[in-house]
Amino acid sequence: MPADVVAIARDLLRCPSVTPAEGGALALVADILSRAGFTVERPVFSEPGHAAVQNLHARIGHGGPHLVFAGHTDVVPPGDEAQWTHPPFAGDVADGVLYGRGAVDMKGAVACALAAALDHLAANGGRPKGTLSFLLTGDEEGVAVNGSVKLLKWAAERGEKFDHCILGEPTNPETLGDMIKIGRRGSQNGTLVVTGTQGHVAYPHLADNPVRSVVRMVAALLAEPLDAGTDHFDPSNLEFTSIDVGNKTVNVIPAEARARFNIRFNDLHTQGSLRALIEARAAAAAQGARFRIDWEPSNAEAFLTAPGPFVTLVGDVITSVTGRQAELSTSGGTSDARFIKNYCPVVEFGLVNASMHGIDERVPVADLIALTAIYREIFVRYFG
Amino acid sequence: MPADVVAIARDLLRCPSVTPAEGGALALVADILSRAGFTVERPVFSEPGHAAVQNLHARIGHGGPHLVFAGHTDVVPPGDEAQWTHPPFAGDVADGVLYGRGAVDMKGAVACALAAALDHLAANGGRPKGTLSFLLTGDEEGVAVNGSVKLLKWAAERGEKFDHCILGEPTNPETLGDMIKIGRRGSQNGTLVVTGTQGHVAYPHLADNPVRSVVRMVAALLAEPLDAGTDHFDPSNLEFTSIDVGNKTVNVIPAEARARFNIRFNDLHTQGSLRALIEARAAAAAQGARFRIDWEPSNAEAFLTAPGPFVTLVGDVITSVTGRQAELSTSGGTSDARFIKNYCPVVEFGLVNASMHGIDERVPVADLIALTAIYREIFVRYFG
Ligand SMILES: [Zn+2]
Ligand SMILES: [Zn+2]
Repeated sequence: MPADVVAIARDLLRCPSVTPAEGGALALVADILSRAGFTVERPVFSEPGHAAVQNLHARIGHGGPHLVFAGHTDVVPPGDEAQWTHPPFAGDVADGVLYGRGAVDMKGAVACALAAALDHLAANGGRPKGTLSFLLTGDEEGVAVNGSVKLLKWAAERGEKFDHCILGEPTNPETLGDMIKIGRRGSQNGTLVVTGTQGHVAYPHLADNPVRSVVRMVAALLAEPLDAGTDHFDPSNLEFTSIDVGNKTVNVIPAEARARFNIRFNDLHTQGSLRALIEARAAAAAQGARFRIDWEPSNAEAFLTAPGPFVTLVGDVITSVTGRQAELSTSGGTSDARFIKNYCPVVEFGLVNASMHGIDERVPVADLIALTAIYREIFVRYFG
Repeated sequence: MPADVVAIARDLLRCPSVTPAEGGALALVADILSRAGFTVERPVFSEPGHAAVQNLHARIGHGGPHLVFAGHTDVVPPGDEAQWTHPPFAGDVADGVLYGRGAVDMKGAVACALAAALDHLAANGGRPKGTLSFLLTGDEEGVAVNGSVKLLKWAAERGEKFDHCILGEPTNPETLGDMIKIGRRGSQNGTLVVTGTQGHVAYPHLADNPVRSVVRMVAALLAEPLDAGTDHFDPSNLEFTSIDVGNKTVNVIPAEARARFNIRFNDLHTQGSLRALIEARAAAAAQGARFRIDWEPSNAEAFLTAPGPFVTLVGDVITSVTGRQAELSTSGGTSDARFIKNYCPVVEFGLVNASMHGIDERVPVADLIALTAIYREIFVRYFG
């Protein structure tokens, strides 16, 4: 009898594990995996100024190949609970749909991976032909300082070597089987700060209006594309998300203007090369204006898991279960895959992301059953 | 024996008449003018939400020509009094220089006009060959709602008809005799509000970034001159003094961006024609972006007192006293001349403005004596 993925998922949804709270979710996972024969450890990571966060590592089997399923059990806050059709932490099923915060992002996918693992072990005498691991963090939706970064390092220091990783983030825009993520764009924030000379609007020749310069420089930075994209990546994109002068006095020319931006960049750039490019373009547009760019720290470099046997295996399984040809994509925001890729090739595939982070986050039971079948068949072919 | 302009000026400086306080200044003027035979009235104007303000009207003589000296006895606050070399309301004279808040803007010039009037009357049997008036307000440095606007209307309603006006604002940049103001640019404030569609920076195609549009529109508005200036006016000038989005979240594309501006415009425009021009240029640069312009109320239209006999008379007198050829200018900020010009031609000439509104505002005694001589000679030629 196959594992009951819906029961596991609803039990997980009933754990109020809003970051950084564990909420009982990792304890539940630990219990399931321990009883299935996994060696389970639950390291807690902490850092001054941040809440301590619980994490989980579990492994079964020995030798290669070594496949790790990665994910998180923390969730974003439910927002206004009164707006939910079903309470966010009740795990209600109605008309074949499971409701709750984390249903698709990503307790649902964790439940599918757990059920698939139980089924696979049951069909293989309790052990994989290689090693199967779980790496689950409770700090993905928050600042992510006590989550995957430390968990991966912790595992590596204990000698864990992963050959491949499946990360269960919700990758499908509309229908299960739409999209596999085989990389992610990098992300870099910065603030362009232009300094002028304050003065009275009636005497502009005695002042130097930084608003004039910041507008010219922002326009110039927006005018020229960063690249034309690659086979696997969209063109890199620069968005200015705020310009702030904060001058309340309309007859005074201000002394400073600030423009904050975010860049989502593909693997034609590194953060270093990108910063140099932006600095050069800003300087070319400055026309003598004094400026600096304050770069914010970032650990989101672009990366690509190049198509090859592992990506093909995952894609073929998805087609066999859903009948769909999943697009190989690098679109969207960042994920913990940006940390995992430093240890092994990583592919992301999970549920449909349409309702994630929203009111009435939900997943059809049929999707949970299909995703369990996909993960199970991946295990079969991977360890076959 | 000529009137003692320095004594009058220092008595005025000792009145702490920071807007809207009368501080004894208008009472002092009333006393001087009454004793010289003027009919003096001191209307108080008020309006809900604003402090009531004292004003002064004085007249002597009858029939034309009718010359009015206009000015104000209120002053801006002294700022940090500890930074003053001499206390701001002490009226100290040191090394031939009179110190105090209002020394040049414009109690000093009021004292010169009073002394000149006393001298002129003394030399002419106590009456001008026409009518000489004083219009002094206590609300020029503030919001100016209970000052010249109401005072001019009040005088007109009583049948006063002025032929020409001298406004004693400090018009000279460096040396007495540098500059006569024969007009003022208009002033108009507005805010360009661009509305977009909020979204996540990783999915810019689902959002519409108003920062992109506001930068394009501001750049377009700055790119094209409003005009090329006239014989008497500099080109009109547009300054954006603030851009504010206020988006604290760098990975969110905001929904709105606001850019506030001030326009100093010459008499090629009216506020109405200028608004239409800016709206049309903004629309041309909008490229479909949703925007509106919030125009702030303003009563500062551009105006010019065209050169002619009166301007020539004033210029000739300045040359005869100072040896300088005063520039006929329309530069700088606005003044109450924008209200007076609706009643009669107005020319502005006063002291040197370098120290106005600053710490250690001051005037050389020699300038007070020279400006008194100028005003006196204007009276001689005007009534001659
Ligand atoms: Zn997630
Ligand atoms: Zn003034």
